[in-house]
Amino acid sequence: MKVGILGGGQLSRMLVMESMHLGIEFCFYLEKPTECINEFHEMIIAPFQDEAALRKFAEQCDVITYESENIPYETVLFLESLKPVYPQAQAIRISQDRLFEKELFTRLGIPVAPFKPVESKNDIIEFANSHGFEFFIKKRRLGYDGKGQRLIKSLTDIENLEADFCRDAICEGKINFSREVSMIAIAAINGERCYYDMCENEHQAGILRQTLNRTQDPLFEKAQNYIDRILTHLNYVGCLVFEFFQVGDELIGNEIAPRVHNSGHWTIEAAVTSQFENHIRAITSCALGNPASLGSCKMINLLGTIPDKAEILKKPNHHLHDYKKKPVAGRKLGHITIFPLVD
Amino acid sequence: MKVGILGGGQLSRMLVMESMHLGIEFCFYLEKPTECINEFHEMIIAPFQDEAALRKFAEQCDVITYESENIPYETVLFLESLKPVYPQAQAIRISQDRLFEKELFTRLGIPVAPFKPVESKNDIIEFANSHGFEFFIKKRRLGYDGKGQRLIKSLTDIENLEADFCRDAICEGKINFSREVSMIAIAAINGERCYYDMCENEHQAGILRQTLNRTQDPLFEKAQNYIDRILTHLNYVGCLVFEFFQVGDELIGNEIAPRVHNSGHWTIEAAVTSQFENHIRAITSCALGNPASLGSCKMINLLGTIPDKAEILKKPNHHLHDYKKKPVAGRKLGHITIFPLVD
Repeated sequence: MKVGILGGGQLSRMLVMESMHLGIEFCFYLEKPTECINEFHEMIIAPFQDEAALRKFAEQCDVITYESENIPYETVLFLESLKPVYPQAQAIRISQDRLFEKELFTRLGIPVAPFKPVESKNDIIEFANSHGFEFFIKKRRLGYDGKGQRLIKSLTDIENLEADFCRDAICEGKINFSREVSMIAIAAINGERCYYDMCENEHQAGILRQTLNRTQDPLFEKAQNYIDRILTHLNYVGCLVFEFFQVGDELIGNEIAPRVHNSGHWTIEAAVTSQFENHIRAITSCALGNPASLGSCKMINLLGTIPDKAEILKKPNHHLHDYKKKPVAGRKLGHITIFPLVD
Repeated sequence: MKVGILGGGQLSRMLVMESMHLGIEFCFYLEKPTECINEFHEMIIAPFQDEAALRKFAEQCDVITYESENIPYETVLFLESLKPVYPQAQAIRISQDRLFEKELFTRLGIPVAPFKPVESKNDIIEFANSHGFEFFIKKRRLGYDGKGQRLIKSLTDIENLEADFCRDAICEGKINFSREVSMIAIAAINGERCYYDMCENEHQAGILRQTLNRTQDPLFEKAQNYIDRILTHLNYVGCLVFEFFQVGDELIGNEIAPRVHNSGHWTIEAAVTSQFENHIRAITSCALGNPASLGSCKMINLLGTIPDKAEILKKPNHHLHDYKKKPVAGRKLGHITIFPLVD
């Protein structure tokens, strides 16, 4: 069984590291070489638009997956015509567009912040008139880790907005949330599903800083209900994350990602089966592994720089993950999972 | 930091799989290509006697280790003249020779079965005269997984013995043991040490079949005391396993191996830090990780054939490890760890 993976970042790296014990082989498709997976040799380096290269890639693989929802939809559609691709192209189409996401949540009865598509400055002014300030303008596509969004506090902010934010964007009401949480679910080809502990996430400047798993979260069932609606609607196969804002006892759907997710990195050490292994099991027609956590833990992202590794490893139960990436300010270079949690 | 590994079997595979998250790079030195590590590209393929190739290998590595005590002692000595090698060549010299092992145990006050070096049939007859039947003849070198030994029950057995067993061998009294147990310890360069749960091992025909970790074994401290004597005597760095026979409340030293060990495979899923990661941490001057187990588990070796993988993965908490080796009768092709243990 050979799994093809589009992309060569840390998520690809962990997908392989955490499932190669199953005896599965991997082949990567990258647009350019990366440090994250330079141990491995089976890869094709070509643009995502190169049909001949994509065809060669698909011929080598039994099934194809990806580490990012920002792979071009057309690439995934093309591959889908050649080999099974999970999660399916439809999940890419929706999750790479904030408007489609919000429309889907609404259609499925999942609460969302007020939103409105933006194709001109007028649309923004209308949104301000009906919902007041403050709110966000977010690019519909290619926004992640806090990129591609602006907080709008006044008419002046609207006037000063770059033209790029006045089309292919949405206005989105600002939510006064008590917590940011996420749920990771895995859906197998035969319909089997499993769910990890609810994750409590702390973001700064739009980038995830740390995650705690909540072994007995009171909103677990609500999150499960909402993510199930998405899984069922999309006839989904693979790992799906759903990020929510908590307001009172309600969960407001923020976004989904059709892939393994940063808020699930803790599952490597602290769950019986990691999100990475279960994603690979799901897309290769295997039974899912037990997602139960082994206890509470904390995951901390290492951004921009990796502190002295020897010092990290001196701290009790600190599990260091170094993605081997070149240090760049704000870039996710690694993470630490503390498990079991020590006081 | 780049670690060089001599050998390319499943132990090398797991050393890399279980420590690449630390951002460490690896380079293998193999006599011939193997299936176990064919995902990786950084390797030198040359005989263990090829000094030019060994020199090239050493130049690339910061530190060197190995997965087998059957690497030629001279190879390890030569590498030691170029780069740090852990465990040190001295550990190879002793552990690849049953006579040296037994002599060391005796010298350190660790109980052993009666033994006697064999250089002629006469030596065997003398041993029979003083200790009676039954006993083993074991080749001093290159015996593992039950190879290179004969059980001697009578004078006729001695008469019929192949000439090869009448030199470079030892006679060894047969122990009526209640349990076969092993302890895995890790010793770091700065003297720090840690110890895993005692392992209770079941062998058949000299090959390990299954291991249970014993979270509260009454003989833990005795085993720790004995393994400490070896670690101290050899000024040891890295992972060491000590296999014992239990007789009453005593432990009889059977053999040591200066490497990660089959009876410690369970530590991947069921210890806070695996033997593999801790071996790499030890030899790269890092602090050791917590060796505590997360609970009871069972490890089962898959010999000769891997049963239907999909069926294995349907069973609760079964963690499958497929080494990707060609099936050969009796060959270790993989293992399963059941954790948490289910009733």
